Amino acid sequence: MTIRYPNGKVYRQPSHSKATTSKFANVNFGDRGMSLEQEINDSNTYYLENDIAVIHKKPTPIQIVKVDYPRRSAAVIREAYFKQASTTDYNGVYRGKYLDFEAKETKSKTAFPLKNFHAHQIQHMRQCLHQGGICFVVIRFATLGRLFLLTATDLFGYWDQQAAGGRKSIPLTVIERLATELHYHINPRIPYLSAVDNLIDESSSNHKGEHYGRK
Amino acid sequence: MTIRYPNGKVYRQPSHSKATTSKFANVNFGDRGMSLEQEINDSNTYYLENDIAVIHKKPTPIQIVKVDYPRRSAAVIREAYFKQASTTDYNGVYRGKYLDFEAKETKSKTAFPLKNFHAHQIQHMRQCLHQGGICFVVIRFATLGRLFLLTATDLFGYWDQQAAGGRKSIPLTVIERLATELHYHINPRIPYLSAVDNLIDESSSNHKGEHYGRK
Repeated sequence: MTIRYPNGKVYRQPSHSKATTSKFANVNFGDRGMSLEQEINDSNTYYLENDIAVIHKKPTPIQIVKVDYPRRSAAVIREAYFKQASTTDYNGVYRGKYLDFEAKETKSKTAFPLKNFHAHQIQHMRQCLHQGGICFVVIRFATLGRLFLLTATDLFGYWDQQAAGGRKSIPLTVIERLATELHYHINPRIPYLSAVDNLIDESSSNHKGEHYGRK
Repeated sequence: MTIRYPNGKVYRQPSHSKATTSKFANVNFGDRGMSLEQEINDSNTYYLENDIAVIHKKPTPIQIVKVDYPRRSAAVIREAYFKQASTTDYNGVYRGKYLDFEAKETKSKTAFPLKNFHAHQIQHMRQCLHQGGICFVVIRFATLGRLFLLTATDLFGYWDQQAAGGRKSIPLTVIERLATELHYHINPRIPYLSAVDNLIDESSSNHKGEHYGRK
């Protein structure tokens, strides 16, 4: 049975399947109809099982209204609604750093529409960045089969321009210039932590000697 | 209407209520029947609004089985079940550090039962610690109105002893010695980041020169 989110997107169970042997080395895994979310989840499972990073997708927030307690069986939620998340979908720890990110895809071939992000997600990333977190978005041009990691700071620039009446998307040409292109791999499927390594190294040199606010 | 988790615990909506004026300065907020979870959530709201830290409780994970899509209204979840979380309840970023913790309470006056923790939570904290995260538990002796912050490392010692046939709880006298006692406050209600400051400072000096695994 197909279950859908309010936005019509198909709900998928988190999978923990192990991927593939090396005979698939030349297959483009981005074309197998797997959602970006699923690909990131699989990559996170790989990173976790190999002691590289601990990154989880947050559960979808649900507003529970009614729960039944049938005898001798588990509680059943009988009425609940999807709530808007107040944070991004992914966070965790890698090389002693707090990572926080969102993964989004578009069918456009020329630009990434900013409507894919919500104001509260941008706000959350600003807050995390202020605390010294590493914040970014993984974006996929589904039709082109291209993937990029764009820093939150670069995203904010375009977000703020839009809020001031500017264009409602980031051109692919700009993304090619600002972001790090990611290439599909076997394990992990999306090796986004390689790009994060560069962000951490830059962040370490920028923040050297800087003091975070204390309570 | 009262909604309960499968363990019988009452489900509460996250509140964003602002607390109190200074005339309540001498009130013991721990005695107002507020759950520890609610107190931690309120403290996190304070920390967030004051740009001190970004720490959120993760949504309760739900297994969705059936969703209705009534015309012109929001999707309604008609059948869903509570799932066991694979991580701790809280994580976030503070002073550039990844924090990860769980909050638990007991009615015992003499010892904290280890059955309050699940093997997967312990495993998750071990993984986060391995990546350089700051991991701990906030525990409340509800009957005594006493609160402590115990590091994950200290908890692991007792957890592993239990697994080897040792005692099934940590005596209060041990907690008094190992943990940092927290005292109720107005804002934040539970000022647990003061204790985290010490953990961060210790962790910085212990990990000096240590390298985290790279991809």
